[in-house]
Amino acid sequence: MKKIVLCCLAAIAAGVAGTASAQFRTPESAIKYRQSVMTVQGRAFYVSIGGMVNGRAPFDAKVAAESAELVRMTAQLPWTAFGPGTDKGAPTDAKPAIWSEPAKFKELADKMQLEVAKLAAAAKTGSLDNLKAAYGPARDACKACHDAFTSQ
Amino acid sequence: MKKIVLCCLAAIAAGVAGTASAQFRTPESAIKYRQSVMTVQGRAFYVSIGGMVNGRAPFDAKVAAESAELVRMTAQLPWTAFGPGTDKGAPTDAKPAIWSEPAKFKELADKMQLEVAKLAAAAKTGSLDNLKAAYGPARDACKACHDAFTSQ
Repeated sequence: MKKIVLCCLAAIAAGVAGTASAQFRTPESAIKYRQSVMTVQGRAFYVSIGGMVNGRAPFDAKVAAESAELVRMTAQLPWTAFGPGTDKGAPTDAKPAIWSEPAKFKELADKMQLEVAKLAAAAKTGSLDNLKAAYGPARDACKACHDAFTSQ
Repeated sequence: MKKIVLCCLAAIAAGVAGTASAQFRTPESAIKYRQSVMTVQGRAFYVSIGGMVNGRAPFDAKVAAESAELVRMTAQLPWTAFGPGTDKGAPTDAKPAIWSEPAKFKELADKMQLEVAKLAAAAKTGSLDNLKAAYGPARDACKACHDAFTSQ
């Protein structure tokens, strides 16, 4: 993990990465970043929140709210990592349609962000019923984008 | 990325992952998760916030606050992924000392979480000076733990 620190410091020293939406140094680093976002988000959504919603774990309003907020925040992150040329460079399940049908990709990505924002708001109410009501639409919005734009 | 969804659904179906701190199915999945957390956190910290602190990017109080909050939240996540047996199973820079010196590991991990919580609080004030003041101690706390417990 020191490599990550060193890599970031190297990127900074090179002056190539300066803002929140700064370009990635290589397609590989972009692919690694967006996959990392999905891994972190997937666990918060399917394991932490999903566990409570589906009765596999006791409801903990604080954990639910933090997990849903994490899902909301991570939902904003991967898009800058789908820049031109990042369709290859490392193993990726991203379909070419992401770059050939950008309007549809954006539509589904926006829908997902809208639904997980609703999920985060629902979680903040501290009500399991509200969380359950928002979970399904958020899950469906995630799935719709993955079904359309990722291969197995 | 569909694999992530399917993997999570499979874990859920198997009933092995139910809470926020649920065990991971395999050492490999734990290693992948903690590395993903570090990748997401590293970009928010070194690229987004670091860019503003070091003058490579214009200060945006909203982005700084969201990035610092993301760092604070992700700082809570990786620890359950350092369970017994996760010292191998996939390429990892984690040193054996993580498991042989758990008290020291916890001490540095706690210190890091404390400093990034201060960073998030500083970012919420909307002041670049406050952000700068909290950034150095947070960076040093990250580095201290990586220096002690990760190899290159």
